[in-house]
Amino acid sequence: MTNTLYLPELREMLAENNAAELREFCQALHPARTAEFMEGLTAPEMWAVLQYAEPQLRVEIFNFLDREKQIKIVETMDRHEIAQLISDLPPDDRVDLLDEVKPEIVAELMPLLPVEERRDIQRLSSFPEQSAGAIMTTEFARLSENLTVRQAVEEIARQAESLETIYYLYVVDEEDHLRGLVSARQLVSAIGKPDTRIGEIMERDLVTVNLLDDQEAVAEKVAHYDLLAIPVVDDEWRLVGIITHDDVIDVMREEAVEDAYHSGAVYPLEKSYLETRLVTLTWKRGLWLTILFFGALVTIFTLNHHEGVIKTIPWLVFFLPLIVSTGGNSGNQSATLIITALSAGDVSLGDWWRVIRRELVMGVMLGGSLGAIGYLIALPLAPGYGDAIVIPITILLVVMCGTLAGSLLPLLFRRMGLDPALMSNPFVAGLIDVLGIIIYMNVAILLLDH
Amino acid sequence: MTNTLYLPELREMLAENNAAELREFCQALHPARTAEFMEGLTAPEMWAVLQYAEPQLRVEIFNFLDREKQIKIVETMDRHEIAQLISDLPPDDRVDLLDEVKPEIVAELMPLLPVEERRDIQRLSSFPEQSAGAIMTTEFARLSENLTVRQAVEEIARQAESLETIYYLYVVDEEDHLRGLVSARQLVSAIGKPDTRIGEIMERDLVTVNLLDDQEAVAEKVAHYDLLAIPVVDDEWRLVGIITHDDVIDVMREEAVEDAYHSGAVYPLEKSYLETRLVTLTWKRGLWLTILFFGALVTIFTLNHHEGVIKTIPWLVFFLPLIVSTGGNSGNQSATLIITALSAGDVSLGDWWRVIRRELVMGVMLGGSLGAIGYLIALPLAPGYGDAIVIPITILLVVMCGTLAGSLLPLLFRRMGLDPALMSNPFVAGLIDVLGIIIYMNVAILLLDH
Repeated sequence: MTNTLYLPELREMLAENNAAELREFCQALHPARTAEFMEGLTAPEMWAVLQYAEPQLRVEIFNFLDREKQIKIVETMDRHEIAQLISDLPPDDRVDLLDEVKPEIVAELMPLLPVEERRDIQRLSSFPEQSAGAIMTTEFARLSENLTVRQAVEEIARQAESLETIYYLYVVDEEDHLRGLVSARQLVSAIGKPDTRIGEIMERDLVTVNLLDDQEAVAEKVAHYDLLAIPVVDDEWRLVGIITHDDVIDVMREEAVEDAYHSGAVYPLEKSYLETRLVTLTWKRGLWLTILFFGALVTIFTLNHHEGVIKTIPWLVFFLPLIVSTGGNSGNQSATLIITALSAGDVSLGDWWRVIRRELVMGVMLGGSLGAIGYLIALPLAPGYGDAIVIPITILLVVMCGTLAGSLLPLLFRRMGLDPALMSNPFVAGLIDVLGIIIYMNVAILLLDH
Repeated sequence: MTNTLYLPELREMLAENNAAELREFCQALHPARTAEFMEGLTAPEMWAVLQYAEPQLRVEIFNFLDREKQIKIVETMDRHEIAQLISDLPPDDRVDLLDEVKPEIVAELMPLLPVEERRDIQRLSSFPEQSAGAIMTTEFARLSENLTVRQAVEEIARQAESLETIYYLYVVDEEDHLRGLVSARQLVSAIGKPDTRIGEIMERDLVTVNLLDDQEAVAEKVAHYDLLAIPVVDDEWRLVGIITHDDVIDVMREEAVEDAYHSGAVYPLEKSYLETRLVTLTWKRGLWLTILFFGALVTIFTLNHHEGVIKTIPWLVFFLPLIVSTGGNSGNQSATLIITALSAGDVSLGDWWRVIRRELVMGVMLGGSLGAIGYLIALPLAPGYGDAIVIPITILLVVMCGTLAGSLLPLLFRRMGLDPALMSNPFVAGLIDVLGIIIYMNVAILLLDH
């Protein structure tokens, strides 16, 4: 997917030291597009091009480069220049980046950073992964509530250059306690009354998150309240950072991918599919696959236990895969519905009885119809229509068992404080495989008492 | 999840017509929280409370109410008052709302709306569902490039009250062709040079979407370029609307839920789980369940065809569920990995050969290890260690078949222009069930030539 359109021109400009054109190249396009056009260059070439961009723009373009290339640049280019770049990066991005750079190089870079930024990096890296503290940025627009609208506009104009977002202006007291919020829109609307105090126009009922809140909860709040950014406070209600909408979008994508992996029983990858080493990938799959395999071993012992039934009524075997897969599929559907409803907040633990009733009714309707089809198929294969009745009864019971287990297990997991998504498709299906065989064999024994 | 904390107080205020306190209630909190506290009220009570909010705030609170309650209010309250509310709603939200209101009531409301808004509603509803045109809003801040910074600030201060977002200011010519963009941040930074023309500070390289682009592609672009809003243009590059970050977040959640339903073989629901009627729910599940059931019928005929093998070597039956579920699980893992990688853009069609090689290697490693465990389990159950060898060889082949089919089918679907997510877990597993049994029976025939 590398864009090679401009590569020859870029290399020529570099060879000729054509400062005017290189500066123009850095400035003319959206930084994300500039980064795309540079993708085919080597790390030293990229760094050479970036020298022609103003520091602010250099940081923006750098931020859109591939992570691998960013790491390469940080690890191989001049330490002093890189320290400057790192101190210009937004605080949240630079912590994420340094996290992936070789520790010995980070150790060389840290002493070259201004002491304030060094402390900021150490503090941000100390928060648990996936917490609000770990994804927040510490640069935001602050105001005092005693400022007038005119003073606030001047103050923001002064801060604007260096800040990631100025769309929410946070009002804090001398000890950084969060007092209120003024949106840029409110401030601009109030320009006609320049002597109004900020304290008079600010909103006081704020939606905030705590430093240790989980990133998924943060994303939920931002989505629910339609926010551009959410303030992060500590236990004393001091404003310590903000999380902006673009980071929230990243969190949502990350969580969606994690959920997809869960539903496929793959342990989440850290890099992309093609970049992950085969050994790592095999290990991340093998772990779950082996657990599921050991679970499925129970089916062997169950069938072995009922060897007599299988030997006396061999036609039952023909329906074995159909019965376990139908039970597994109906269980998957229920699990998917309930996991999705739980995470959207449409269903809560208190609804368990309604959920059971609904799933039972659906189990009867679905199992009944599929059982009827199964009966028609069984008729020519079974010795008589009395014997064939084992199939529809088993299908009905297995589908009901699937809908019940598929819906109750996620609720149970939520009740125990675990992520309901863990009880995802392959695990539900594995469980129904075993239950399905037990039901099948027992229905056969009861009805065909040979 | 209804918040009943304030209900008695609210009802008392309404009974007493306590205007001062009701006005205070509407203003004091974030509109989303005000809406939460009103949740337990009836539609007429809600509407009575909303009368105490300024029109702008009324719209904001209304927008955070449950969709059911919104519809109830629109359908039952005074037509003229509702027409006013609707004309105050953001254009994209009002189209979504009217879409769910009874057509006869919409027909009564439409003539009460100003002609301009009536046209806007008709135009927006004409775009295909899930297109950029269908989710955009037609209210945004416009500027002419000949304005000075001072004039622009005054102009925006004038427009700010009525607009959803003023953080990006779009520069258009007399025929609404999109010429550039100035962010509120750039404008505020330029306040020191009030006579600069907008044309000099605006960005000209813009990221846009077309009216007919799919909402998923829109969300991708906004996420990739870290935008607050994206302009929507028609084929003549005329600016017709914008899509804001909060709508993009909604699209991402919608798509994530749709993907989850796919992976569980449920036809996407329109309402929440508990609100969907049981008949609808059964139908949306039954459709896929029946398709999968008919697919699984093939396993019956395959086993029936090999009746001889099963009767001669009855211990083979014990391993049947284990073999098909292991094949299905490894196929699911591959499908999940490839579908996720395709949608993240980490893998493209051109990578098919690399994908096959990787999946084959993983198939050999995973199938080999699980096969070894299977061999140990088979030893005491099979008549001899020569016979037991059927199990590891089958597991190896079935797992390889699972990884290959699981990875190639999504690629094939993408190649045919279909959504790779359709080839999701239950379908891959169903296919591997059939292939697994065929492999198993043939390995047994070849090795145990009785």
